[in-house]
Amino acid sequence: MSGAEIDNPSAAAMYETDAAIHHLGIEIVSVDEGSATVAMTVTDTMVNGYAVCHGGLVFTLADTAMAYASNSLGSRALAASASIEFLRPAYADQRIIATATSPHVGQRTSYWDVAVTNPNGDTVAIFRGRTKVFDG
Amino acid sequence: MSGAEIDNPSAAAMYETDAAIHHLGIEIVSVDEGSATVAMTVTDTMVNGYAVCHGGLVFTLADTAMAYASNSLGSRALAASASIEFLRPAYADQRIIATATSPHVGQRTSYWDVAVTNPNGDTVAIFRGRTKVFDG
Amino acid sequence: MSGAEIDNPSAAAMYETDAAIHHLGIEIVSVDEGSATVAMTVTDTMVNGYAVCHGGLVFTLADTAMAYASNSLGSRALAASASIEFLRPAYADQRIIATATSPHVGQRTSYWDVAVTNPNGDTVAIFRGRTKVFDG
Amino acid sequence: MSGAEIDNPSAAAMYETDAAIHHLGIEIVSVDEGSATVAMTVTDTMVNGYAVCHGGLVFTLADTAMAYASNSLGSRALAASASIEFLRPAYADQRIIATATSPHVGQRTSYWDVAVTNPNGDTVAIFRGRTKVFDG
Repeated sequence: MSGAEIDNPSAAAMYETDAAIHHLGIEIVSVDEGSATVAMTVTDTMVNGYAVCHGGLVFTLADTAMAYASNSLGSRALAASASIEFLRPAYADQRIIATATSPHVGQRTSYWDVAVTNPNGDTVAIFRGRTKVFDG
Repeated sequence: MSGAEIDNPSAAAMYETDAAIHHLGIEIVSVDEGSATVAMTVTDTMVNGYAVCHGGLVFTLADTAMAYASNSLGSRALAASASIEFLRPAYADQRIIATATSPHVGQRTSYWDVAVTNPNGDTVAIFRGRTKVFDG
Repeated sequence: MSGAEIDNPSAAAMYETDAAIHHLGIEIVSVDEGSATVAMTVTDTMVNGYAVCHGGLVFTLADTAMAYASNSLGSRALAASASIEFLRPAYADQRIIATATSPHVGQRTSYWDVAVTNPNGDTVAIFRGRTKVFDG
Repeated sequence: MSGAEIDNPSAAAMYETDAAIHHLGIEIVSVDEGSATVAMTVTDTMVNGYAVCHGGLVFTLADTAMAYASNSLGSRALAASASIEFLRPAYADQRIIATATSPHVGQRTSYWDVAVTNPNGDTVAIFRGRTKVFDG
């Protein structure tokens, strides 16, 4: 999906200049007001010494889902904190998907739950994060 | 630093086949039994739409410090969970450093505290994670 | 509700000897397989020096919801870790309610999301925890 | 220790009206600028259906250590979030001790690490929390 095809204007604007997710090959699957789904295919350069996807890159996918969900609300927001539970490894060539929804949206601080799943529908990780709106 | 120069044999073995950290340009600064320091220079392909380093990549650096510290103990271990607090952004061209130490090493489960700092010595993020030894 | 009225047999058995929740006045509102709702009225002895309910007791209510939800599945389980975000204070005389559901139930390790709400339906806290089955 | 004996004036003032910790029998062992140690003897009314101290009350002790450490700095602060890892149970009649120190003190937001230990010096739990200064 190119940025032009993202329905949500805030998310589309952010996507245009988001070098990191382009470089990682993260796709924006969908962005609605207050939720987002993103996907990434695990490449050979993403695996660690145990032949599983680096946990940091699984986190990065979840964090990206949160970023697009939080920015879909119209204000600019950045991650303030997050926690992740790794339930099973992801492997090279798997396309993993992360979906973010919110248990609580506040004026400036919002919370996001993200589930990362593999092509079998098994949960790879669960993530909970907090974003803060910033000005300027 | 090449893998051959890492004093700790478990960490050196892991480093040889760790494609992810080579691809991200993460250097192993030092590995001692139960601690590790790693570093990464934020490149133009690591910044997001707000011109700051993607939080997922800051997490990835911290997670890598934990991985090398936990594997320095001689058993193979993987991250089971982690949480991170983002204190200030990291920017392109900054070399950020992550050091992992442990508040509690157990037989199979250990905990790790990681601080990520920028070239000014300011804290970029604090991270706490849990690793589990695995067999095979 | 007395223990005898709790439909779920594992939860009813646990309730009989659970001195802590009796002492705190925590009520078991409902326990179904894989979920539980509990409630507590904030008393004058639960408030701190700022006249709000001690955050530890809000956590205790959430943790109790997790305990009854996880033990409803038939195996004995204990909390292994948890995190909480405090969204707004709870005050003396408020009856606060915590409901636990699971984003992932595993063989031995399960995860639980708990929301704590006040009588206006506002969220006091969100909590995520991990339980482990134990033997003996 | 009575409130009058607490050297730190902010902590002493808070202690006077802190009904919750008096009711739970939590003692303030020491408060220095930016750190605090508190203790609690696990009573028969603090154990759950598995004859171990309710994890919520272990959290409450850790949270109290954070509260006194954060308020020792002169500004009024409340807990905003916290996470805890339960390493081993605490039992009735054990006096458990929690010590809070800070990996990062900010203008309004600070972070605190708390270790809870039993009389053998074994770690019962490790805790990390975040406090925010409030006005009025």
